Amino acid sequence: MAKIWTAGLAIIGDEILSGRTQDRNIAQVATWLNAQGIRLADVRVVPDVEERIIEALDVLRSSYDYCFTTGGIGPTHDDITVDAIAKALGVPVVIHPDARAILERYYADKGGLNEGRLRMARVPEGAELIPNRMSGAPGIKLGNLFLMAGVPHITAGMLDALTGTLEGGRPLVSVTVGAFAPESEVADLLRQAEQSADGISIGSYPFFKEGRVGSNFVVRSEDEQRARAVADDLAIKLAEVGYDPVEGGI
Amino acid sequence: MAKIWTAGLAIIGDEILSGRTQDRNIAQVATWLNAQGIRLADVRVVPDVEERIIEALDVLRSSYDYCFTTGGIGPTHDDITVDAIAKALGVPVVIHPDARAILERYYADKGGLNEGRLRMARVPEGAELIPNRMSGAPGIKLGNLFLMAGVPHITAGMLDALTGTLEGGRPLVSVTVGAFAPESEVADLLRQAEQSADGISIGSYPFFKEGRVGSNFVVRSEDEQRARAVADDLAIKLAEVGYDPVEGGI
Repeated sequence: MAKIWTAGLAIIGDEILSGRTQDRNIAQVATWLNAQGIRLADVRVVPDVEERIIEALDVLRSSYDYCFTTGGIGPTHDDITVDAIAKALGVPVVIHPDARAILERYYADKGGLNEGRLRMARVPEGAELIPNRMSGAPGIKLGNLFLMAGVPHITAGMLDALTGTLEGGRPLVSVTVGAFAPESEVADLLRQAEQSADGISIGSYPFFKEGRVGSNFVVRSEDEQRARAVADDLAIKLAEVGYDPVEGGI
Repeated sequence: MAKIWTAGLAIIGDEILSGRTQDRNIAQVATWLNAQGIRLADVRVVPDVEERIIEALDVLRSSYDYCFTTGGIGPTHDDITVDAIAKALGVPVVIHPDARAILERYYADKGGLNEGRLRMARVPEGAELIPNRMSGAPGIKLGNLFLMAGVPHITAGMLDALTGTLEGGRPLVSVTVGAFAPESEVADLLRQAEQSADGISIGSYPFFKEGRVGSNFVVRSEDEQRARAVADDLAIKLAEVGYDPVEGGI
C-alpha cells in the first residue's frame, strides 16, 4: 500500500482563542495540502504563550510528515513563534541575511528598517525562507517545519510559493451526492454504501434549504473512479427511495 | 488572585480537516465562553477516528475546567463521539429515556423513530441532556464534558441553553484601538503600553484598507477600566506620532 503523507497544523494566536478573529487558515491549509497529496491529520489552536507553542510543535512535528504553523511571525512583542521554535529545536535565533535584504528592499521607500522590522528577519539557525509576495517578511522552512503568516491572504501567497515543492501521495478525491434526504432516514443505506467498496469513506452533513431538510453525502477515496462509482450508486438508491436529488450538493 | 476558569474544545469531523467545511464553531464557542467568564485555552481538531477523539478528550477534560466538543453526535455511521467518550470514561452507552421521548415527539409527524434516529438518544451512562430547540436531538452533558452538535446554528442553540449555567470568573474585556499605523513601526510603543499596567496584554493585528496599511491593537484585561485607560493612552500616543485613527478598529 502506498504511503499516506500527513501534516499537522498549529494555529498560533490569542485572537483565535478569544473569538475575535474567525479562523480561515484551517480550511485554506487543508485544501492546499490535499492538492499536494498530503492529509491534514491534526490541528491545534494555541495561545501566544511560548511553552504552549513548544508543546504543540513537539507533538506535531514528530507525529506527522510535515508540521505547519500560522501566526506569530510579525514584528511585534506578541510574535514569539520563531523564538519558541528555536527553543523547541535547541538552536539559536539568527538574522537570515536574505530575509534582511528582502526587508531592506521592501521598506526602502517606507522609512527603512527598524528594530521591529528587523525582527522579521530572525529565524532559527539553519532555516530557509518561504517567499512572501504580499508583504515582504518571508515565512520560514526548517526540516519538516513550515512557519507561515497568520493573515489569510499572506498565508495564501506562502502556500502558493510552496506549491509542488513537497513530497506527497495521491490526493483524496471527494464526490458529493446531495439530496433532500434527512440523514436520520438513510443511515442504513449510507453504512451499506460505505461497506460496498474498500478504501472509501462516506461523511454525512445535513443542510437546511428552502424550508426542507437535506444532506450532503461526501464519498472520499484516493481512487477517484471508485469514489465516483460508489457515489453514483448511492445517488441511484436515494432516488429509488424517492428523495429529490440536489445536483453536486450544497 | 481570582481563579481563571478555562475550557478546551475538540472540533470533531473529517469535513473540517479535509477543508470541505469552513469551521465556525471555534469563534462562536470562544465568544460565548468569554461571556460566561471562561477562557478558551486549547482547541484540537480531530478526525472521525475513535482513538483520536479519546486521546484529545482525555487531555482536554483533565487539563481544563470544562471540555466542549462539536460534531459527531448525529444519526449516521460517522457519528462516533458518544461511543468514543463512553470508552474514554469507562462507562456503557445507554438510551436516555428523556432523549428518546424528545425524539419520539420531534419525529412523530416525520415518519417516527427508526434505528438511525434512536442513535441520537444514546448517551454515556450518567449523562444529562442539553436542550436543542432547533432540531430535536439533544446535546450531552456529563461532569465537565459538554457534547454539542457540529452544525453551527444548532451549536448556537445549545450554547444558548447553557448560558448562565456554568461557573466562571470575570470575562476578559477587549478594547480595540485602530490606526493607519503599520505594526512594524510601532512595536516599541506597543511593548511600552503593555508594560505600563499589570494584568493587561496587547495583541497587534494588521489590516489593509483602501490601499493603506493599518493595525488593530487589542488591549485585553479582566479589568475593564484598566483596559480602557491603556487603550486611551495608546490612542493618544499613536495620534501624537501622526497616525490617523480608525475609530473602534476594523
